[in-house]
Parts: sequence; C-alpha cells; structure tokens
Amino acid sequence: MILKQAAAQAVFSTEKMGKVSLGAGEHLYAGLNCFEPGQQHAAHVHADQDKLYVVLRGSGEASVGEETAAVTVGDVVLAPAGVPHGLRNSSAERFVVLVVFGPPPKKD
Amino acid sequence: MILKQAAAQAVFSTEKMGKVSLGAGEHLYAGLNCFEPGQQHAAHVHADQDKLYVVLRGSGEASVGEETAAVTVGDVVLAPAGVPHGLRNSSAERFVVLVVFGPPPKKD
Repeated sequence: MILKQAAAQAVFSTEKMGKVSLGAGEHLYAGLNCFEPGQQHAAHVHADQDKLYVVLRGSGEASVGEETAAVTVGDVVLAPAGVPHGLRNSSAERFVVLVVFGPPPKKD
Repeated sequence: MILKQAAAQAVFSTEKMGKVSLGAGEHLYAGLNCFEPGQQHAAHVHADQDKLYVVLRGSGEASVGEETAAVTVGDVVLAPAGVPHGLRNSSAERFVVLVVFGPPPKKD
C-alpha cells in the first residue's frame, strides 16, 4: 500500500481527537491522530504494544515517560510497551500525527 | 524517546544505501534508509515482518507487490509480511526514509 500524503486523510472532530485507520499487517498497524487546536490524547499506557509517532502536519507537544518536548513535522517519538505517552496540540493550527502500533490493536 | 528531525541522523555512503538505527522496543524497530542519488534497496521480502516506510526527506520511487509509485515527504508505504518491496532514489537529491519493522529484526 502506497499512501501519497497520508496527512491528507486526516479527519477532525470538534469533540475530540480524530482517529483514522490507514492500514495494517499481521504485526503493524498504521493510523492517524488528528488534533484541532487545544485537543490532546492524554498520557496513557499500552502494556503489550510499542507505539511510534511521526509528526506529519503542524506542531504540538509529545510526552514519553518523563520526557516532554515540542514536536513538529519530521519528529519521531517511540514509546515502548509499558511507558506512558501522550500528545497535545498546543498550537493554533491543526496537528496530524502518524501512529504506528506493533502489534496491531486487538479486534474484539 | 523523542527524536527531533529524525532525518538529520541520516548517514550516507557512496558505496550503498546507508542504514541508521533509531531505536526499538520489544515489538517495533525504527531506523533510517539513506540514499544518495541513484542508490536503491532492491525489492526484497521479509517472511515474518511487516514494514512501514515514511519519506522524511527528498523523493524517490517505492514498490510494494505490483504497485510502484513516486514518493516524497509525507508519503507512507506499508508492506505486509511476505510482500516484496523496495525503494529507489530516482532523484538528483539525497533521499531519507524512516523504516519501521514489526517485529524488530532478530539479533543473531
């Protein structure tokens, strides 16, 4: 699957962060987290999944464990299983982040 | 781990594609493939790993299965386990691609 300009598939909601599924294999899942200004995905933990973020559009703030930093297009965040992580759109523009899970979320 | 401007960690070689490891958890590995003009990573298969590419710098050509397309910054490629895939720098500029494996390559 070749996805030109993945960020163009972003879906936004005024209520909460938008989520878009891009694709998955047996071992990896790829999607988008889409933030209006001020929205966040509060710090949370996945016990059995590693997560990788790649900022595709805009800028915001990322946290992983004790680390917090401003992030922008081209920045990469890796949160190993068990480590709390979150994202926040602290900017005045929309913020779109590619999210990769390994392994994919369970369908139940 | 928060990596500002991951593409800045690229390492190039005149002999062949440069490879850089960025980090890994138990389930995911992240690195860079770094291409001088004309270099390629010929189509190949991983039987038990999914691979995801995100173009971070420059432009080139990606193939996945029967699909081939020009790719540039912000494009995403997903190659499920068992599907041949490759990259080629068909441009006159350096080309840097984030590579994600799930699960990580075996250390042996």
